[in-house]
Amino acid sequence: MDEFDIIRDMFAPLTVGADGAFGLRDDAAMIEGGPFVVTKDAIISGVHFLPKDPLDLVARKLMRVNLSDLAAKGARPVGYFLACVWPGNIKREQIELFANGLKEDQDQFRVNLFGGDTTAHRVKSAPATFSATFFGTPPRQGMTTRSGAQAGDDIYVTGVIGDAGLGLKALQREEKFTTVDKASLSLRYHLPEPRLSIGAAIAGFATAAIDVSDGLIADAGHLARASGLRAEIDAVSIPRSKAAGEWVARQQNRWKALAEIASFGDDYEILFTAPTAMRRSVTVAAKAAKTEVARIGSVTRGEGAALLDENGREVPVKAAGFNHFS
Amino acid sequence: MDEFDIIRDMFAPLTVGADGAFGLRDDAAMIEGGPFVVTKDAIISGVHFLPKDPLDLVARKLMRVNLSDLAAKGARPVGYFLACVWPGNIKREQIELFANGLKEDQDQFRVNLFGGDTTAHRVKSAPATFSATFFGTPPRQGMTTRSGAQAGDDIYVTGVIGDAGLGLKALQREEKFTTVDKASLSLRYHLPEPRLSIGAAIAGFATAAIDVSDGLIADAGHLARASGLRAEIDAVSIPRSKAAGEWVARQQNRWKALAEIASFGDDYEILFTAPTAMRRSVTVAAKAAKTEVARIGSVTRGEGAALLDENGREVPVKAAGFNHFS
Repeated sequence: MDEFDIIRDMFAPLTVGADGAFGLRDDAAMIEGGPFVVTKDAIISGVHFLPKDPLDLVARKLMRVNLSDLAAKGARPVGYFLACVWPGNIKREQIELFANGLKEDQDQFRVNLFGGDTTAHRVKSAPATFSATFFGTPPRQGMTTRSGAQAGDDIYVTGVIGDAGLGLKALQREEKFTTVDKASLSLRYHLPEPRLSIGAAIAGFATAAIDVSDGLIADAGHLARASGLRAEIDAVSIPRSKAAGEWVARQQNRWKALAEIASFGDDYEILFTAPTAMRRSVTVAAKAAKTEVARIGSVTRGEGAALLDENGREVPVKAAGFNHFS
Repeated sequence: MDEFDIIRDMFAPLTVGADGAFGLRDDAAMIEGGPFVVTKDAIISGVHFLPKDPLDLVARKLMRVNLSDLAAKGARPVGYFLACVWPGNIKREQIELFANGLKEDQDQFRVNLFGGDTTAHRVKSAPATFSATFFGTPPRQGMTTRSGAQAGDDIYVTGVIGDAGLGLKALQREEKFTTVDKASLSLRYHLPEPRLSIGAAIAGFATAAIDVSDGLIADAGHLARASGLRAEIDAVSIPRSKAAGEWVARQQNRWKALAEIASFGDDYEILFTAPTAMRRSVTVAAKAAKTEVARIGSVTRGEGAALLDENGREVPVKAAGFNHFS
């Protein structure tokens, strides 16, 4: 197996339609147009995905965590650069499976591969790592940042929260679910849905946005900190799937369970803020984007992010999001 | 140690001057202007650098291998995105050392960090991997590609060839050198010089260019293949440092030694082609860019790349460049 064969047979076909990729036969690519919104996320075996996860799902997760960042910024994705670091003993079929996953999501999200690097660890069993740099065009009104929230703004979140975290627990056999629930929860862990339509639809009036990857409260905290304000989230208003709702109902301490939901990562929903005067616009955007949006709190003076119970008292959230160096 | 502290303390200062980086406090960056030339290279502990290499040198090598790609394309570097995957047991001081290396070369090459991702292996001793995506503005005449060489063109290379490979052999104690030679050769392995000035100076008349990372003959072959032609390199005309020249003189078989020089990687010089009518322009560009340029062969009909002895007979080159999957 030769890296040039791999590039020619498996990755070059992913550049069809992207002239500036030069069929991966050059040192660099040309990306025409601009300005661009750019994001770069890496995923690591044993950290962001399970070592036994099928590599087509891993490829699609890599794409989706990056597309989710573009979605939160209201950007329209165009293409990406990819670096693969394979274990030394990787098989050709495994790389093919990975490339098939890329192809599937490229078609779905209408993006092209523009360039990258294919390498392998000298160590046979070293963990695979993948890094992608995605670029897209900003919305007409400019990229939605994390820092524009105003005191008094409503806080919204798309979709449902907690499924991916429960899916991971199901996969790791830390929690038991029915077969159907396990399948739907673990799918949410493996294949997050980048919220591109709603991200673009709210770009005109959202004051700030972030994708929920570290955990709802952690990411609300990032947004609040960037905006110099405080985010207060009503625990009971956090949207949950039926499976997650039943899981909460099964726990001894309801508030502790809701706090867990609010601390799970990997949901890749969009948390955003908008002035209260824009509530109708949010409803219209949600309908147009065919995406559920829930109002879950508000921006206040102060700092950090807090989870509140029905009486407005703060519910302690144990792990304030995932930390790679803890 | 917290990844957010690391980003704030060590990486955010590297974005000063790049407004679109939002101080690394957003999901994505904005890069203004365009079109852009973009390249992405990853480096891995134990493959592209030695596990004991000081991390400031590793950071600078990461920058330089990417800058070298932009140099070959005639582009002016602007900024980069960085993904770090640290071993699980990395120390704060080590990350600091890495960031210091980035800072040093940022100042030298006038580029800014725009974004990225900081993660760690769950496995304590897993090899560190770093991936960077660099972007720059193309030269006025458009990016120099690999595919524009014409039959009859001269082939040139900048600097000297073979030092980095001999430096690696010196570091791995496979070859013995004087203390001074070992220092200068290993410096060439650790700190390649991206040939930005000459890359820009030849952009107007070079028909094709590539940076020499896999090995002189291997990369000449890449260029020839992309151009649908053949590259013939005169072994004796390959420019060598004094130390490399002495190493060749010490070998039993001179042609075998020259073939080895032509197969080493990591030199990061630029190999380029230009019409014979442009020889004066090449001399002028070399002088303006203060970079040595040697004429080492010519482009012919046919395919592949060949190393020729003084009688025009092909010298066998054993390893046609580095291959990650061999």
